[in-house]
Amino acid sequence: MTDYKKLWESMDIDLEKHDQLCNLLPGFFADVYLSQENRPEGMNYFNLVVSSIHGLRPEELKRHKDDGGKVVGTFCVYVPDELIVAAGAIGIGLCGGSQFWVPDGEKVLPKNTCPLIKSFMGAKITRTCPYFQSCDLLVGETTCDGKKKAWEILENYADIHVMHLPQMKRDVDIKAWVQEIEILKEKLEKLTGNEITPDKLKDAIRLINEKRRALKRLYELRKARPVPISGKDALLVSQIAFYDDPERFTSKVNDLCDELEERVKSGEGVFPAHAKRILITGTPMAIPNWKLHHIVESSGAVVVCEETCTGTRYFENFVEEASNTLEGQFRALAERYMKTNCACFTPNRGRIDDIIRLAREYEADGVIYYNLQFCQPYAVEYELVRRALQKEGIPVILIETDYSENDSEQVKTRVQAFLEMLG
Amino acid sequence: MTDYKKLWESMDIDLEKHDQLCNLLPGFFADVYLSQENRPEGMNYFNLVVSSIHGLRPEELKRHKDDGGKVVGTFCVYVPDELIVAAGAIGIGLCGGSQFWVPDGEKVLPKNTCPLIKSFMGAKITRTCPYFQSCDLLVGETTCDGKKKAWEILENYADIHVMHLPQMKRDVDIKAWVQEIEILKEKLEKLTGNEITPDKLKDAIRLINEKRRALKRLYELRKARPVPISGKDALLVSQIAFYDDPERFTSKVNDLCDELEERVKSGEGVFPAHAKRILITGTPMAIPNWKLHHIVESSGAVVVCEETCTGTRYFENFVEEASNTLEGQFRALAERYMKTNCACFTPNRGRIDDIIRLAREYEADGVIYYNLQFCQPYAVEYELVRRALQKEGIPVILIETDYSENDSEQVKTRVQAFLEMLG
Repeated sequence: MTDYKKLWESMDIDLEKHDQLCNLLPGFFADVYLSQENRPEGMNYFNLVVSSIHGLRPEELKRHKDDGGKVVGTFCVYVPDELIVAAGAIGIGLCGGSQFWVPDGEKVLPKNTCPLIKSFMGAKITRTCPYFQSCDLLVGETTCDGKKKAWEILENYADIHVMHLPQMKRDVDIKAWVQEIEILKEKLEKLTGNEITPDKLKDAIRLINEKRRALKRLYELRKARPVPISGKDALLVSQIAFYDDPERFTSKVNDLCDELEERVKSGEGVFPAHAKRILITGTPMAIPNWKLHHIVESSGAVVVCEETCTGTRYFENFVEEASNTLEGQFRALAERYMKTNCACFTPNRGRIDDIIRLAREYEADGVIYYNLQFCQPYAVEYELVRRALQKEGIPVILIETDYSENDSEQVKTRVQAFLEMLG
Repeated sequence: MTDYKKLWESMDIDLEKHDQLCNLLPGFFADVYLSQENRPEGMNYFNLVVSSIHGLRPEELKRHKDDGGKVVGTFCVYVPDELIVAAGAIGIGLCGGSQFWVPDGEKVLPKNTCPLIKSFMGAKITRTCPYFQSCDLLVGETTCDGKKKAWEILENYADIHVMHLPQMKRDVDIKAWVQEIEILKEKLEKLTGNEITPDKLKDAIRLINEKRRALKRLYELRKARPVPISGKDALLVSQIAFYDDPERFTSKVNDLCDELEERVKSGEGVFPAHAKRILITGTPMAIPNWKLHHIVESSGAVVVCEETCTGTRYFENFVEEASNTLEGQFRALAERYMKTNCACFTPNRGRIDDIIRLAREYEADGVIYYNLQFCQPYAVEYELVRRALQKEGIPVILIETDYSENDSEQVKTRVQAFLEMLG
């Protein structure tokens, strides 16, 4: 711990406040995760990563920076990690999932802002997140109103580059996204002093595609009945994908998948075969937001898939690897990223198709539409999803909640009533 | 009234529900408007227009449609009216300002959506607004999340074309807005069967510029001390600008201004010269949303200017009239519209500059930052405005409210405390 204290000091972390934060996680993680039975051995790596979340990986970032490397923070699955990797920088997803930071976020943002935004804002302004503190540049985007406007506050505390994400998906919009990728490329080259060449970008595209393939493999295994891994564990893996070293992460996920394949072959599961299977769709769940998964899985059902940014949206669709020119690679990147169906786009019919497809593929008994409070795009889109799922005969419930524990009992009651209704 | 009943039937209006709505307005208008003392004679025209809001103008729309003309509904000051006029259609601003429609809007939209959006949605789905019912096409835009996503619900009830408004103001964004104007042009030509020629567009640009000039003249006169017209009356004129015939409206505003000029010359005012002068900045106030103005002016202060979409944003900046080609005209339109500073853009420093400039020009004693509940862009931007005004020594207060009367007393208490603080 002494070593980490030096590390944190070097990052200008508010040590006193940071201690308060660090004291919360171990007990919480033990309650939610370590209490699970029959967990795969392959989860040990991910347990370690999360239990030393403010130590191990931040230390790697520090070493990278000491060697002259740069760290770039992002907040959205539309920002192409490939460019960051190709520039020799390390990319870190910074979305906040902790209630700890919310009150400080509310000092500069309206209370009726989504908790994810208030949380990352609080993390930055209190200087209690080693990932934020490691970043040489933040990359924002014009997705939702909350984030779009939060950058204007955040820029008082950190360097930030904002990408203009189109709000539609016509060909003209994909072309516009190519332009934004070009602008980001120049920004990253300037930051790192490294040129992004077609070769480097090709390697980066392959690396990130491999990560996607590993996550896809993990998710495919969740289609088994009984399911070989809990939704909570799968969620943790997805969350760690945003900040771990991509190569090591991919290898560890594949190790886990090897083990799960054996489980599937032998019919071994973590929940009975008859347990109700739940698809969660909606807003992202940043670490340590395990609230809804914990409620569902403490109620005897199992989460088999997440149609969220910390789920299928993160890894579905691969970047075409064939091109050897930056022009072709940028187009391939833009096309891949614009296939992701977030409610910040209009229209967004593709997401409804995704939900129906995933509900069938994963044999979900019901869908929980998860909405972070005050997230307007997903809140409005619920009405359209509800209508479409009703037509398909797929039960759905809306759970709108924040990061606090205030409404946990209420959410639990609603989830349990929904599960009973599934029969 | 019998005539109007036939008119409304022809528009597929829900007569019973519409009667309930129509019964509310006269008493409300009398309380808020007709109770004012020493109103300009020139307001008589606007009183007439509003007192027959569902009759006179809708009848004109009906005649226009009977002659083969088209009516196009809009929701935002970024949509160029000039194109609609040049296509021989009539443009109507459809933003909802009545609490009457909110509960019906909430049937398809989340409760925590801004009342303006819930209101226009309720107006359409209940078929109780003759303006909505007259429209052959609605034109939406990707401004805020609430509206961006509301179109996907609204398209189940009406034909809608959505313009992709960029979220930034770089040159690439102005070019993108030119493209959107071109797409709208084709859409309108198809709808009306009329070609938009440079000559027609030139006339339309002049016509709408004239309207802007008249409103600018009205606002300039509000700089006088004592102020020759109440904020409530000026607001009403601005609100009517969105749906009245532009030529007649301009002429009536100029008549009013002639009268106000006389008042200014003779030092005649509607409030004492020492009355506190308030600049309102923030979200639009669609008819009949007179809540905040009524509270301010019932408390002895006077609203001298609105930095809102139903205020200066509507008429500041003129379209360059010189160009004789569509290409040049589209560029001129895009440049003019992209000068408007709405919080849906990032960054939006121009708005802060506008507020400071207007506060000085209108000799405002204080600024009320008006935010419709759940409008995230303006809510987040408050923090930046507050910091900037504090630096300039200009007092500011945030009033966040909806269309209901539930919080009127609370708002009144806060406004009065603010006015007292101004000394």
